[in-house]
Amino acid sequence: MDNALIQRLVYEGNMQLPKNQLVKLTWGNVSMIDRVKKVICIKPSGIPYKKLSPVDMVITDLDGNVYQDQLKPSSDLSTHVYLYKHFPKVNSIVHTHSLHAVVFAQAGKAIQPYGTTHADTFYGPIPCARNLTQQEVEQNYELNTGKVIVETYQSQNITPDAIPAINTKNHGPFIFGTSVKQAIEHTIVLEEVAEMALKTELLAQQNIPPIDQFLLDKHYYRKHGKNAYYGQ
Amino acid sequence: MDNALIQRLVYEGNMQLPKNQLVKLTWGNVSMIDRVKKVICIKPSGIPYKKLSPVDMVITDLDGNVYQDQLKPSSDLSTHVYLYKHFPKVNSIVHTHSLHAVVFAQAGKAIQPYGTTHADTFYGPIPCARNLTQQEVEQNYELNTGKVIVETYQSQNITPDAIPAINTKNHGPFIFGTSVKQAIEHTIVLEEVAEMALKTELLAQQNIPPIDQFLLDKHYYRKHGKNAYYGQ
Amino acid sequence: MDNALIQRLVYEGNMQLPKNQLVKLTWGNVSMIDRVKKVICIKPSGIPYKKLSPVDMVITDLDGNVYQDQLKPSSDLSTHVYLYKHFPKVNSIVHTHSLHAVVFAQAGKAIQPYGTTHADTFYGPIPCARNLTQQEVEQNYELNTGKVIVETYQSQNITPDAIPAINTKNHGPFIFGTSVKQAIEHTIVLEEVAEMALKTELLAQQNIPPIDQFLLDKHYYRKHGKNAYYGQ
Amino acid sequence: MDNALIQRLVYEGNMQLPKNQLVKLTWGNVSMIDRVKKVICIKPSGIPYKKLSPVDMVITDLDGNVYQDQLKPSSDLSTHVYLYKHFPKVNSIVHTHSLHAVVFAQAGKAIQPYGTTHADTFYGPIPCARNLTQQEVEQNYELNTGKVIVETYQSQNITPDAIPAINTKNHGPFIFGTSVKQAIEHTIVLEEVAEMALKTELLAQQNIPPIDQFLLDKHYYRKHGKNAYYGQ
Repeated sequence: MDNALIQRLVYEGNMQLPKNQLVKLTWGNVSMIDRVKKVICIKPSGIPYKKLSPVDMVITDLDGNVYQDQLKPSSDLSTHVYLYKHFPKVNSIVHTHSLHAVVFAQAGKAIQPYGTTHADTFYGPIPCARNLTQQEVEQNYELNTGKVIVETYQSQNITPDAIPAINTKNHGPFIFGTSVKQAIEHTIVLEEVAEMALKTELLAQQNIPPIDQFLLDKHYYRKHGKNAYYGQ
Repeated sequence: MDNALIQRLVYEGNMQLPKNQLVKLTWGNVSMIDRVKKVICIKPSGIPYKKLSPVDMVITDLDGNVYQDQLKPSSDLSTHVYLYKHFPKVNSIVHTHSLHAVVFAQAGKAIQPYGTTHADTFYGPIPCARNLTQQEVEQNYELNTGKVIVETYQSQNITPDAIPAINTKNHGPFIFGTSVKQAIEHTIVLEEVAEMALKTELLAQQNIPPIDQFLLDKHYYRKHGKNAYYGQ
Repeated sequence: MDNALIQRLVYEGNMQLPKNQLVKLTWGNVSMIDRVKKVICIKPSGIPYKKLSPVDMVITDLDGNVYQDQLKPSSDLSTHVYLYKHFPKVNSIVHTHSLHAVVFAQAGKAIQPYGTTHADTFYGPIPCARNLTQQEVEQNYELNTGKVIVETYQSQNITPDAIPAINTKNHGPFIFGTSVKQAIEHTIVLEEVAEMALKTELLAQQNIPPIDQFLLDKHYYRKHGKNAYYGQ
Repeated sequence: MDNALIQRLVYEGNMQLPKNQLVKLTWGNVSMIDRVKKVICIKPSGIPYKKLSPVDMVITDLDGNVYQDQLKPSSDLSTHVYLYKHFPKVNSIVHTHSLHAVVFAQAGKAIQPYGTTHADTFYGPIPCARNLTQQEVEQNYELNTGKVIVETYQSQNITPDAIPAINTKNHGPFIFGTSVKQAIEHTIVLEEVAEMALKTELLAQQNIPPIDQFLLDKHYYRKHGKNAYYGQ
């Protein structure tokens, strides 16, 4: 894939965020990695969405080094770089402050799988990472954000393949996909299931059980893996 | 009615779902049956709404057998087929994951008739079907989804004519009509009364009585049956 | 004012309802009275908004008798007629099922004046009328809806001039104005202050005092009456 | 800067309010000050947004005296004038009745900093000023609204530079910026973090701690001050 195509894919992914009401102002960013060509491409820093064009998308090497004569990359670049190094199946990462996902990040609660809308995409609760320590925040904050995400996946024995989104505490979600298109779809689903879960908890006004494990299995595996057959 | 017209009606019904914010991505599906011509027509599987066209709508016989050279039908086809067999007055079925209807499905609660907006269309509570058993989920899940819907109507002694929508537990609603147009209208009303009912329960913060039976009767019967006279 | 102009004003008022997300489908209706020419004009019954045109607006006399060769008037006509007879300063009436206003109607609660957004338009709580009796519902329901509205204003010693909206129990709001334009503006404000009041009660999670009476006075009277001076 | 340019900036700022769903009807106003040229410019009073044009923006001196042959200025002018005199770094002021900000004003609660979306713009809680006394309301209400805002900043030992928004009790927010563009951005952020904070409190259903001070510091100072480096 040549750089111009990569930039176009990343540009189109970024433009999906305001189009789907997932960001305000310049918030949020989408990146992708081409593991063969060994490049990462990410949204530039602080440019309004309507002024972006594909050539503004910043190309870096696999360590996040920016080639010259480009705009400044998103400040979240080092989070993305760290995650690409540790999640070898992830080829695209999205970060948003979408409203209902952030509500769970601010409350420090996982988004429980209450229904098949959740199970169709996420094979279990969407976790919220622990608070960063003062030292982690003050030194290499963006890198440490990546580290605590990887730590959470490892400590809960889950993968971004099965649970392609995670909240960072008091901050917001990072979302994963094997392609930009898939990562954007997961971002749309995340925001929808977050709103559904919030309102389900408000309606039930007590602890409600999550979806039965066998129904979670059914919905997840009829859409994922070698026996998948589902499409609405 | 010829197949091209049936396909156009089903296509236009499906396109109403994203237009009315009732679905995201490829979620949801609309079908219809022509009981004279003995065909069922349903949305194909997994195609984005904006790429659909009328000829993509899949035609089957009354057992859901797909005629050759067509796209793959929605995976929910066998639910629809079962329902058409057992609900002889139903000529169109809609399935969505519309947000507030799903919230009631996830909480496992019926949508109570708190007002005339509900009573104008639904003659009583909109039920939530029981959980499927592990066996029902693992063997013929979509068929069993249809069975538990019929079982719920029978056990509560109600009909899809009077209560043209039902939630499936932890999943979402199936909505019925005598035509595609009517089924879509019922789908719009369902989502609206679900949001109204959720917020009514949050506002009242205690058990509130449903609408008086005679007011429910008045609103339902001034719009339905041989003495109907109402239009806003 | 000639009939064509009256029809145009009523048509344009009705079209504001879907434009401002105050109604779904064919719900809602707007009427006006010309007290000099002694005619009432109201939306026809059951026609989708996008198929309406000004000539479809139904002209009646002051008792609601429809002149021949017209569409069937909204079924709520007799409510409107009764209200025009008893509220001599009201020249336009709106009825909607707007979401948050209906939530208060369903919970049977008045919309309390928690802030100046409310006080700028409504000089006190927006009441919810009592339940109609079974007899009132079964005999002349629409007329009795008008009667219970007038009764509520009288028993609470308020006027539609100062409080230009009221909820009917388990049903929804009727809104008043001296012109179609003003009645529509009151309808927009009603829905907004209803959503604000609901969320204020949810946030405070306890009884909260309404706005101070002197602040209510200030905001209401800087916009209304002979000493009005306010515009944002 | 000449008056025509000032009027254009103020006009464009005002038009951002309905565009971003921050106001209904004629609610809200945006002003700016040119401290060199010693003029203030504000939206005229009571004109619908779609009828506004740049030449309608009202120019005054630093005491709010309107030069002749202009429209009547927003009734909130004396609040703006007082604030410009006491906040020397503020060059633009916005007033809205945006829904979720008003909910906190009506409940009389500060908007707590629960996350980085808040911390990126507001360095701590967004306060709610005290109730005005009856005398303050009845005599020079708009001027006293400015006074109680200044009093709140002083008594809490904060500045509109670090906390560029405040709620007035039972009323709504005033928002500050060094430019019209920045004040509008702060207004968009305020409404978003207010909705996030409301839903965070509803989800957590108990007292939840605000964001760690060091994370608040990190997010605020990576975007503000001499060591700022951040852009998404």
